[in-house]
Amino acid sequence: MEKTRIYNPTTLHFGRNAVDELSADVKNSGKKAFLLYGKSSIKHHGLYDKIIRLLHSAGVEVVEYGGIKSNPIIEDVNAAAQLGRQEKVDVIVAVGGGSVIDSAKYISVAICGDCDAWDYPTRKTIVKGAIPVFAVLTLAATGTEMNPFAVIQNVTAGQKVGWGHPMMYPKHSYLDPENTFSVPQNYTAYGVVDLIAHSLEAWFGFGNASLSDKFVISIIQEAMEAGPLLLEDLHSYELRERIMYAATMALNGLTMYGRSSGDWGVHGIGHVLSLLYDVPHGASLSIAYPAWLSLQKTRIPDRIEELGCKLFQTDNPDDTIYKIKSFFKSLGSPINLSEVGIDIAQKDNIIKMMIKEANGSNHRLSAKDMEEITDLMFLG
Amino acid sequence: MEKTRIYNPTTLHFGRNAVDELSADVKNSGKKAFLLYGKSSIKHHGLYDKIIRLLHSAGVEVVEYGGIKSNPIIEDVNAAAQLGRQEKVDVIVAVGGGSVIDSAKYISVAICGDCDAWDYPTRKTIVKGAIPVFAVLTLAATGTEMNPFAVIQNVTAGQKVGWGHPMMYPKHSYLDPENTFSVPQNYTAYGVVDLIAHSLEAWFGFGNASLSDKFVISIIQEAMEAGPLLLEDLHSYELRERIMYAATMALNGLTMYGRSSGDWGVHGIGHVLSLLYDVPHGASLSIAYPAWLSLQKTRIPDRIEELGCKLFQTDNPDDTIYKIKSFFKSLGSPINLSEVGIDIAQKDNIIKMMIKEANGSNHRLSAKDMEEITDLMFLG
Repeated sequence: MEKTRIYNPTTLHFGRNAVDELSADVKNSGKKAFLLYGKSSIKHHGLYDKIIRLLHSAGVEVVEYGGIKSNPIIEDVNAAAQLGRQEKVDVIVAVGGGSVIDSAKYISVAICGDCDAWDYPTRKTIVKGAIPVFAVLTLAATGTEMNPFAVIQNVTAGQKVGWGHPMMYPKHSYLDPENTFSVPQNYTAYGVVDLIAHSLEAWFGFGNASLSDKFVISIIQEAMEAGPLLLEDLHSYELRERIMYAATMALNGLTMYGRSSGDWGVHGIGHVLSLLYDVPHGASLSIAYPAWLSLQKTRIPDRIEELGCKLFQTDNPDDTIYKIKSFFKSLGSPINLSEVGIDIAQKDNIIKMMIKEANGSNHRLSAKDMEEITDLMFLG
Repeated sequence: MEKTRIYNPTTLHFGRNAVDELSADVKNSGKKAFLLYGKSSIKHHGLYDKIIRLLHSAGVEVVEYGGIKSNPIIEDVNAAAQLGRQEKVDVIVAVGGGSVIDSAKYISVAICGDCDAWDYPTRKTIVKGAIPVFAVLTLAATGTEMNPFAVIQNVTAGQKVGWGHPMMYPKHSYLDPENTFSVPQNYTAYGVVDLIAHSLEAWFGFGNASLSDKFVISIIQEAMEAGPLLLEDLHSYELRERIMYAATMALNGLTMYGRSSGDWGVHGIGHVLSLLYDVPHGASLSIAYPAWLSLQKTRIPDRIEELGCKLFQTDNPDDTIYKIKSFFKSLGSPINLSEVGIDIAQKDNIIKMMIKEANGSNHRLSAKDMEEITDLMFLG
């Protein structure tokens, strides 16, 4: 194992009506809440009204910013931060999936730093403080509810970046599986892909971590058992619960303890696809992961073989890659670029952007590798 | 899953020379440290000198209390608390295994409460505050380094109890596998038994928690793989590391999320054996667990069958119990009472005490059950 520090300050409330505890928790932290959300769907399902009621009953004033996009953009973050500063909000209540909660994390540090939020991931400034974030999760996927990371895109700069700071852990997160009932089938599938991809990024990271490896396998198995059942029964509390809990565990540190880093090469590629063509995050990963594995199969055969033995009782890397791809396909998540409407004419454009933006992988990718992965992503 | 709150405020420093960080951490918390330890063995291995040096370099004054017993007693806790109050210590540095760290937790709240520490587990008073505990672990077993629980015995009252309070989490814990190199073979084995027993107590608790179940199996598998290898190679850093990390994960909350409680019946029985005959904790568990499983095999066959399938690929409960017992035996941990020198003439005495003290189990045990378990513990 690599030297490891384990510390996670988020309090996670999990289960039916978990959000009821928001009232008392926020009351202890502030008087004016900044309520962030995305599409108006939370208004249709009663969650918005419930949260307003909970905040008012705690005597907390509410300022709102809605309409955060599903691939969140820095312009929204900066506009919200400006409003938050003006209104002197002292807590943030973020209601949504990864996009809203990730935006909330940037808004939190941008309010305190009185700066352009883009200055943080581009290292032009450092974090000076953060407003406490209370996250009400409505989509099981990214794990942002219990980690300090956040992804944001800057269309002008042509970048989609992941970045984090220890002050960006949510203070409290509220996870009621019922709040994910209305997530449609395709986004439910993308969430399952995303949590498996997070587990794999840990698996292919640096450092021997025997027990953390077992936890990775446990999480992937949980997702592979519950995911397909859930897609047949979107209102099953038990199945929503299993996927929601697995998604949190897939990126709250647990799979990473004892490693110096994860791989994150596939996430880099996925971000490029989202940036260029607005491909949903999970969908980009079900296209990119099999392609990346095919490239790596002769380079890290042992690690792919071990994965195959544990997950599928096969020591043949081709077999393992085929089974992972087939699983994503069975969920209805795309496994090649044509399925998301990207034409072969875009190939050079994708490769160029991948070389520019997606080279942060643990297992370094050359320009030629990027070309090969892109070919593989078109083949599917 | 049962409704769950996940929060663990301990910062765990894991790896080579993890203890070096003690200096800066203590400095941020206080000026006068209360150094607690057990036998003088830490003086022989250089750890004592190192810690004194780290504290002095932080400008922290040191008051000492040594000689805490391996089944820790309330008299030591109260004497230490009195000294700590007198000396106005503001942090506790506990160097040792479960006994020292558990004692430190009671001392921490007894200093603040200005009371007899026994008043807490007997519910005569409530926790009003706690002095921060910094734990330097030298034995991989109990998991106390990352949880708020502590076991203590009161010989006069004839009780050994486990109790906990959220203020009793260590603030920082330092786990360097090298600090466990000198643990002899038998206590190394008892540690492996203890961590497996903790995992089983979670497995037999209340509440369906599918992913937590998988984590339980992962931890037991890790212990069953690394434990026997470690006993052949006590100075292997890698194997000490695997067992040390598994022991922390076995009782830091991870296996319990989504359950309303663990079982803890076997721990109750083990505590009786330790109280009456000073049996080491792990040794008491390798005797009691197979007996308890034999009693339960017709009552909770499904759960024992599932355990057997996952661990040993057998759906026969007798086979599973035999395999668990054989594993404990292969470690050199006792599997019957005669092996620890307890004579059959003690039978009534044991049963009487078990009826009085060990009935807190999730799967309730009647007086007749206690008799049957005792018979089984003599048979082994």
